[in-house]
Amino acid sequence: MNRAKILILGAGYGGLSTAVNLQKKLNANDADITLINKNDYHYESTWLHEAAAGTLSPEDVRYDIKNVINGDKIQFVQAAVTGIDVNARKVTTDKGEHTYDYLVIGLGFEGETFGIEGLDKYALSIANVGAARLIREHIEYQFAMWSQDEVKDDSRLTIVVGGAGFTGIEFLGELGNRIPELCKEFDVPQEKVRVLCVEAAPMVLPGFDPELVDYAVRHLESKGIEFSIGTPVVQATPEGVKIKKGEEEFDFIKAGTVVWAAGVRGNRLIETSGIENMRARVKVDKDMRAPGFPDVFIVGDCALMINEEVNRPYPPTAQIAMQQAETVADNLIALMNNEDTHEFVPKLKGSVCSLGEHDAIGDVMGRKITGTKASIMKKIIDNRALYMIGGAPLVLKKGKFNLL
Amino acid sequence: MNRAKILILGAGYGGLSTAVNLQKKLNANDADITLINKNDYHYESTWLHEAAAGTLSPEDVRYDIKNVINGDKIQFVQAAVTGIDVNARKVTTDKGEHTYDYLVIGLGFEGETFGIEGLDKYALSIANVGAARLIREHIEYQFAMWSQDEVKDDSRLTIVVGGAGFTGIEFLGELGNRIPELCKEFDVPQEKVRVLCVEAAPMVLPGFDPELVDYAVRHLESKGIEFSIGTPVVQATPEGVKIKKGEEEFDFIKAGTVVWAAGVRGNRLIETSGIENMRARVKVDKDMRAPGFPDVFIVGDCALMINEEVNRPYPPTAQIAMQQAETVADNLIALMNNEDTHEFVPKLKGSVCSLGEHDAIGDVMGRKITGTKASIMKKIIDNRALYMIGGAPLVLKKGKFNLL
Repeated sequence: MNRAKILILGAGYGGLSTAVNLQKKLNANDADITLINKNDYHYESTWLHEAAAGTLSPEDVRYDIKNVINGDKIQFVQAAVTGIDVNARKVTTDKGEHTYDYLVIGLGFEGETFGIEGLDKYALSIANVGAARLIREHIEYQFAMWSQDEVKDDSRLTIVVGGAGFTGIEFLGELGNRIPELCKEFDVPQEKVRVLCVEAAPMVLPGFDPELVDYAVRHLESKGIEFSIGTPVVQATPEGVKIKKGEEEFDFIKAGTVVWAAGVRGNRLIETSGIENMRARVKVDKDMRAPGFPDVFIVGDCALMINEEVNRPYPPTAQIAMQQAETVADNLIALMNNEDTHEFVPKLKGSVCSLGEHDAIGDVMGRKITGTKASIMKKIIDNRALYMIGGAPLVLKKGKFNLL
Repeated sequence: MNRAKILILGAGYGGLSTAVNLQKKLNANDADITLINKNDYHYESTWLHEAAAGTLSPEDVRYDIKNVINGDKIQFVQAAVTGIDVNARKVTTDKGEHTYDYLVIGLGFEGETFGIEGLDKYALSIANVGAARLIREHIEYQFAMWSQDEVKDDSRLTIVVGGAGFTGIEFLGELGNRIPELCKEFDVPQEKVRVLCVEAAPMVLPGFDPELVDYAVRHLESKGIEFSIGTPVVQATPEGVKIKKGEEEFDFIKAGTVVWAAGVRGNRLIETSGIENMRARVKVDKDMRAPGFPDVFIVGDCALMINEEVNRPYPPTAQIAMQQAETVADNLIALMNNEDTHEFVPKLKGSVCSLGEHDAIGDVMGRKITGTKASIMKKIIDNRALYMIGGAPLVLKKGKFNLL
């Protein structure tokens, strides 16, 4: 075995799982593995909507990377990647340069604003721990100010959520539970609060079974959440958003809080890496390598892979990222041993979309589930992700046990 | 006994204690008592600095008035007083008018900004539950934003506290404990945070023993808090405060948060009531009545009473307000029975100034105490105030038991 230099970028589901899989399968002297990540913690990006709504502490969505990696086998470097050059086999960070024999890119997603004016500047996004925390604080601050304002402008209490995809709906589900708490805490009459979901597409949760989608929408509406579907946001300003209601018909929604939860893309660093990509996502080879760069693997949200059954890309989920990581780790070992790599085959177990703490919808192993059953299933999935990376100790520390 | 109509304005320490004392001493048919208060809750105004710093939940500094008054004996009206006319024996509120045979004014304090430009608009004040809550949220929001700002302006993390009196020092004490928590929660390096106390007077905590003051300042400085004494604030702007450092020397402190904790005055409604007053405080007769209005009592912060020993007014404390309330209740009963009223004699037990959860300074029964002993004494005093109004059940519900 050749003592290869493996460089893993990013400690999200894909990158960190790759590291953990490698440390399980290799001895300390088998390879020289470095994991680079901006923060010294991993966060559960699928839980961020809870931190953003304030229903879960931001501390509970993250854990120290050092808790799950073995320092004898993997060197952890806390640094922000600033450039990737796969032709020069070089990665630059804010703390120095790295070279590699094998590179694993797991740099995750970025929000996509589709060039809509002002969104970058005036809308909040559920992009990472700091951003989620800021949304929570922003909303609380609006409530605290409204309560003290001598002349009250109720639009302070209006929250516009752009996007009715997975993140948007899960965030709305948490808000549905959080708003009554906020009203009590800040002495705000609940009828003053307005939560509105604006979605350009003609449907909610594309890809989900229509019956389940209907359940979700009815559930959220029963909590007072309004939906405006088939309504693109065309501009964001410090005061709110302009939406398009018809061919030449526009409306302005004044809102103290605008959260943009529509659309993700791969990390922008991919675009200047030398690897062919589409919106920073790489259409990877069957064994998860970047086309034309046999020493570079892409894992997680930056990897684009077509589900040939439906001729659409697989969704960028934690489930798939963690499955890919297993394949990437195995294929790295195969390459080091001059063996053949194997193909990544996703094992789709279905997905569950949470609607707040005790409700959800899900399509699991071909069965449609709703309500408590789906909600418990969601928590089991969340705990499983912890288990896969950090074993039982991590589940005990950060797991979700409020099953009922 | 004549069934008199007693109107009590305000459910702070003075007003609520008056009501509670009356309900202890009178039967349901002895008098027709109405208590008017803006909120349906009483709050511990001496604890607000904790809610403002975020070391105590705003919920824990307030309790429902209905929990401590007996509805058979006292009618509670939730309304904001908008005017008092003692000549016409009339009180107006946002919910209607009231007349009275006897009036008790316990409308508490307001912040005094001494006409300093911009303070009203740009400085926060620890004036009530909503205001304290807003300070907490404002500071957290600054931390959350700093953490997400691409270009970081550390002045976001600067907190200027105007005033080194009781409230200012107690607030600084809580901040000393809260800042490290905030830094951890929002991923802010603590050396970026600056907390600065600016005081126009040449001293900290006027009236306190110099040795104790020295202890307090050293304690707060050890937590990183800076003091700028003898330095008047001359202007507040959205960016911070302008201070006067010398005859013609000024300095501008850029700060994300400015809290004004210097100076209180009586409630402005006193000024248009027809009662002679100084900055909305009434120099009351010895039996707590307003000069020239034998049916009107003033209790708490709106009452001004000279301590002849030192020829200075007694400080506006909860301790004195609650003692006054006993006298006011007794004198009301005396008047109804055509008996003589008696003089109010304060029983000064000393005072304890908190320096955060586990430290304090105090001058109690002539003994100087510091550290844990003083801190425990402070909590005993806080619990005693609860006991005096709501008895043991209220102490159990809202008391402070984290003695060590």
